[in-house]
Amino acid sequence: MTKKKIGIIGATGYTGSELVRILKNHPAVEISLITSESRTGERFSDVHPFFQDIEDQKLISINQIEAFDLDLVFLALPHGVSMDFVKKFHDYPFKIVDLSGDFRLNSAVNYKQWYQMDHVYPEGIKNAIFGIPELFCDKIKMAKLVANPGCFPTSAILGLAPLMSSQLVETNPIIIDSKSGVTGAGVKSKPVNLYSNVNDNFKAYGLKNHRHTIEIQNILDQLSGKETMVQFTPHLLPVDRGILTTIYVRPLGILDAEKLGTIYHDFYADAPFVRLRRQLPSIKDVRGSNYCDLHVSYDARTNMIIIISVIDNLVKGASGQAVQNMNLMFALDEKTGLNLLPVNP
Amino acid sequence: MTKKKIGIIGATGYTGSELVRILKNHPAVEISLITSESRTGERFSDVHPFFQDIEDQKLISINQIEAFDLDLVFLALPHGVSMDFVKKFHDYPFKIVDLSGDFRLNSAVNYKQWYQMDHVYPEGIKNAIFGIPELFCDKIKMAKLVANPGCFPTSAILGLAPLMSSQLVETNPIIIDSKSGVTGAGVKSKPVNLYSNVNDNFKAYGLKNHRHTIEIQNILDQLSGKETMVQFTPHLLPVDRGILTTIYVRPLGILDAEKLGTIYHDFYADAPFVRLRRQLPSIKDVRGSNYCDLHVSYDARTNMIIIISVIDNLVKGASGQAVQNMNLMFALDEKTGLNLLPVNP
Amino acid sequence: MTKKKIGIIGATGYTGSELVRILKNHPAVEISLITSESRTGERFSDVHPFFQDIEDQKLISINQIEAFDLDLVFLALPHGVSMDFVKKFHDYPFKIVDLSGDFRLNSAVNYKQWYQMDHVYPEGIKNAIFGIPELFCDKIKMAKLVANPGCFPTSAILGLAPLMSSQLVETNPIIIDSKSGVTGAGVKSKPVNLYSNVNDNFKAYGLKNHRHTIEIQNILDQLSGKETMVQFTPHLLPVDRGILTTIYVRPLGILDAEKLGTIYHDFYADAPFVRLRRQLPSIKDVRGSNYCDLHVSYDARTNMIIIISVIDNLVKGASGQAVQNMNLMFALDEKTGLNLLPVNP
Amino acid sequence: MTKKKIGIIGATGYTGSELVRILKNHPAVEISLITSESRTGERFSDVHPFFQDIEDQKLISINQIEAFDLDLVFLALPHGVSMDFVKKFHDYPFKIVDLSGDFRLNSAVNYKQWYQMDHVYPEGIKNAIFGIPELFCDKIKMAKLVANPGCFPTSAILGLAPLMSSQLVETNPIIIDSKSGVTGAGVKSKPVNLYSNVNDNFKAYGLKNHRHTIEIQNILDQLSGKETMVQFTPHLLPVDRGILTTIYVRPLGILDAEKLGTIYHDFYADAPFVRLRRQLPSIKDVRGSNYCDLHVSYDARTNMIIIISVIDNLVKGASGQAVQNMNLMFALDEKTGLNLLPVNP
Repeated sequence: MTKKKIGIIGATGYTGSELVRILKNHPAVEISLITSESRTGERFSDVHPFFQDIEDQKLISINQIEAFDLDLVFLALPHGVSMDFVKKFHDYPFKIVDLSGDFRLNSAVNYKQWYQMDHVYPEGIKNAIFGIPELFCDKIKMAKLVANPGCFPTSAILGLAPLMSSQLVETNPIIIDSKSGVTGAGVKSKPVNLYSNVNDNFKAYGLKNHRHTIEIQNILDQLSGKETMVQFTPHLLPVDRGILTTIYVRPLGILDAEKLGTIYHDFYADAPFVRLRRQLPSIKDVRGSNYCDLHVSYDARTNMIIIISVIDNLVKGASGQAVQNMNLMFALDEKTGLNLLPVNP
Repeated sequence: MTKKKIGIIGATGYTGSELVRILKNHPAVEISLITSESRTGERFSDVHPFFQDIEDQKLISINQIEAFDLDLVFLALPHGVSMDFVKKFHDYPFKIVDLSGDFRLNSAVNYKQWYQMDHVYPEGIKNAIFGIPELFCDKIKMAKLVANPGCFPTSAILGLAPLMSSQLVETNPIIIDSKSGVTGAGVKSKPVNLYSNVNDNFKAYGLKNHRHTIEIQNILDQLSGKETMVQFTPHLLPVDRGILTTIYVRPLGILDAEKLGTIYHDFYADAPFVRLRRQLPSIKDVRGSNYCDLHVSYDARTNMIIIISVIDNLVKGASGQAVQNMNLMFALDEKTGLNLLPVNP
Repeated sequence: MTKKKIGIIGATGYTGSELVRILKNHPAVEISLITSESRTGERFSDVHPFFQDIEDQKLISINQIEAFDLDLVFLALPHGVSMDFVKKFHDYPFKIVDLSGDFRLNSAVNYKQWYQMDHVYPEGIKNAIFGIPELFCDKIKMAKLVANPGCFPTSAILGLAPLMSSQLVETNPIIIDSKSGVTGAGVKSKPVNLYSNVNDNFKAYGLKNHRHTIEIQNILDQLSGKETMVQFTPHLLPVDRGILTTIYVRPLGILDAEKLGTIYHDFYADAPFVRLRRQLPSIKDVRGSNYCDLHVSYDARTNMIIIISVIDNLVKGASGQAVQNMNLMFALDEKTGLNLLPVNP
Repeated sequence: MTKKKIGIIGATGYTGSELVRILKNHPAVEISLITSESRTGERFSDVHPFFQDIEDQKLISINQIEAFDLDLVFLALPHGVSMDFVKKFHDYPFKIVDLSGDFRLNSAVNYKQWYQMDHVYPEGIKNAIFGIPELFCDKIKMAKLVANPGCFPTSAILGLAPLMSSQLVETNPIIIDSKSGVTGAGVKSKPVNLYSNVNDNFKAYGLKNHRHTIEIQNILDQLSGKETMVQFTPHLLPVDRGILTTIYVRPLGILDAEKLGTIYHDFYADAPFVRLRRQLPSIKDVRGSNYCDLHVSYDARTNMIIIISVIDNLVKGASGQAVQNMNLMFALDEKTGLNLLPVNP
């Protein structure tokens, strides 16, 4: 079988590095190029020394991309930068999985409001498919451009999707209290990810106005057919990777634990990466893997539903889900190359 | 000035150790005895080696306590054990600050339901004063027995008290999402505090039935004059000490950020250990100190109030607050000996 | 191709868990049984919940092993226990890789001195092959019983082997200053691996008498043909996995950096899991993988050689090396199933 | 008693912050000014938010210093910058404790070689007193300018001083293997102190050429009266604060553990901040305090001495020792204001 040719645009960040980690063992693709503008000409393993003797190819400039015959590119770029290339590549022959936030919202108006920036390619927003395979599998299979979801939205939406579709819960407010590892803040050195500011520490951030709020709310609106109101609060954990999201919603009518369990088991019966957990899941239970672990419970005393959703933000929350989307776009089994077992401890 | 004579009952745990750390520099008291049943005869610094050359007194048995002329004892014992000694000591001349959960709830019935144990001394429950000095200062000054609050309840109640008293918010549900350092689980080695289960990890626990739920709810009922419904979810942070509690409540009528700020500033105008923070507080901002840092905000988009409350669980959440209570019981300035500045980083 | 049938004896520890993580994706073997005496009848995923939906087979007792037709068993048991089973199994048809310390030393006398215990099966010591494939590949291929090396010895011996064989350095003293993650202390909860005793902390332990001292010294004696004197000091790092060993030796004659580099490159030319690193390696550079990363340098000012050796103690220091040995014992490529890329960060 | 007036030059780093933490509770001094060039006009608590309501004074420029009548200034500045101000202030009436490396070496030639920079004020080097009170108390009392030692040198020199003075050990090589917390790298965000590069990780750095090598060697030369040869290797621990140094030296003649112990007890009989530890010390045993904990042992098998030395790099390794020096310069008890008990856990 001829291997599909892949380009990774943006080598220096965590998502680029994770894409290489996953794709090096993927049986159906090969990494044809990796780009970096800031470190063109260096080896990939100069940027990420732990790849020495594993992936030593030279980084090229994105401007050299036309010399390659690619099947798909992953854009591992910052938002605001990514949309320029999606626009430029719109009639190139390769498919695109964009890992930035540029094509995840449902309108350029929302984009401007929450990202404080004009969108340069509103048509792209219309055509982009939101890449959660558990929800939008059929569309992803046909997509030319997939907007790979944000890490927080992946954890929150997978946790809430069965309830939204079933219309069994109040949708105002939906309390989403998320806790994320530091890699979510990116690889650039800054006070927020300085060791001594994070270690043995914990804090909230982005209160009331984090951009993932609207990304979550857009999709919940779509799934529920209602106008939802999401109260989303992210917090910064002293861990490298992983997100745990605790969700509080009130049932509309009468509910019990058994009915709740059935809804989730039915909804995710065919989802190989969603595990409905017997025990309360922890972040390390999924570390390095593409799983989303869910624990669902009903508190009869308070009449509230509590959902706990756990992912590795760099895998199911980014590069792993991107490969899962790629698999679907190539008509491969969505699990191909994603037999990554959790590394714990 | 004659120094007050203090007994510390229970040397091996973290609260015992923190009491010694604080009291060694307290100008008005001396530590007359420290007890341990499991390590009687050893030095305190054999149990906690970092106290070598600082506190090397021999540990005695609690049965030897009658040979001492004490002004106050701190009970740093597990719940279920503590109540036996409070009962035994009820007509002894010394005052008692009990750091266990045995005298915090408002009835023996509640105790039985949430602690799965009969209470041996229900009269003690009636006489015990709940020891949050910012709320019950006058009663504490007169108290013979103070029930030192739980760590989670301290953070949650101080965060909510101004709203409860002002009757401006809905009281069902009150969402309290707490994240605690590991020392909250005690010093005994067990899987829950095994390094490799905690490090680089995060999880929820005690979902729906943690004992601090009822402790919080009892006090919120009392402060608001209403029947409140608390949804409390604790999580385990990979940090040694510290609690951050995120609270979500909906206002009853019209509210704005300014009015909200005024309520808190007025309520805590005379509270030296409550800091109303300009920035979002983090756990290390209070580490080692007796501060409770609060950040209050109103989200006009969702019409929700979000309160963030941060304490060191071993200080304001246990031994520091115990000393603050002791100061009041001795008619000292409540700040005496508590000039502990945060150790950060 | 028929898959080889594997038994894992001892499911509850970290080495057992890592064996499953590696073998689940190994193309040439299947896990026929996993034993545990303390948790017989439970699922493997009850003991290690992160394996839910991955490895849910029931744990059996080791006494049921005779009902199976096995090709090889891994003994993931404590020392002192393991030798009983090696003795019992000595004429069973399957091969054995023993991960304990019971068959690593060169004599029962040494065993008694350093393990304070009589050895029950001295003939086993004679027949066991010390399982570092980079050094003893040919013997391992023929072995019935492989003594899988200790984690510290693996890092120290791989770091020193080229110098020992070349006879270019003084052998008294050889200073080996090692720093290990917590999983080296095992999975049992005890003060040494209590979170609050380890987190944000660091200390030495086992000063002067750690059992790995003699294991290292035995092999260095053998490689150098001299009597070496090893000063080995382990320290406990606040990390889950990983060992970094810093080694100081003095050259015998004239040396320079280039000559030193050549010795190492020649020695490890055919070793797929030894990486001679351009940069100073860190623990996370090998996390989850079977690599041993070496950095070799010569200080002309002091006339000393400094070697830094890094492994994942659970992989190259235990279960990964065990699988590498298994591959050789089955005449497979030693890399089979070990394409585990480092998980970093 | 009139309080001494203190200036802190350089507010933004960890040593400036720790000076404030210590001096706020010091009974004999007051902080008259704190300077910062990058954040002039902001409050100290804007730079270090955990000081809100504790130290809110405005930061001024160092150029305003002449308007103040100061008794002593602490220079908490980078090396290379500090020497300019020491030169400028050389006939100002206040005393100076310089926390940089600019005046620690014994000559401008050494400075140039190890710091790759010309020294602008070689006379200062001659007059500066190396500020380890346990060794140079009398000189410090008379000093106008104290060069506050580096963190690694403090731990290494205190560990070796009794052996150097007693001339009982070989001085080539002296192996000093140090492990430091991240705050040693300063407060500026850069890859070396990025959370994900440090957390759950460990590595060596500065191999063979770290500047503290020569600082240690200069003092050991002076103490021993010989030419010593120091092999110093620093490593980066995933902890905020603390240094543990493991030292290996060979005795010259016959030695035993008892004799070794006596040497240290005699040498440090009057040193309130040096604790000769019964147990192996850990970093948290001294966290937040001014202690240097030493553990000394002799290995009869190998004929080697192993010394373990532990300090908090920000306290005994920087700001605490600076205050101890200040106390001596003011003819105060050296312990004044340094009753900082270890914060553990």
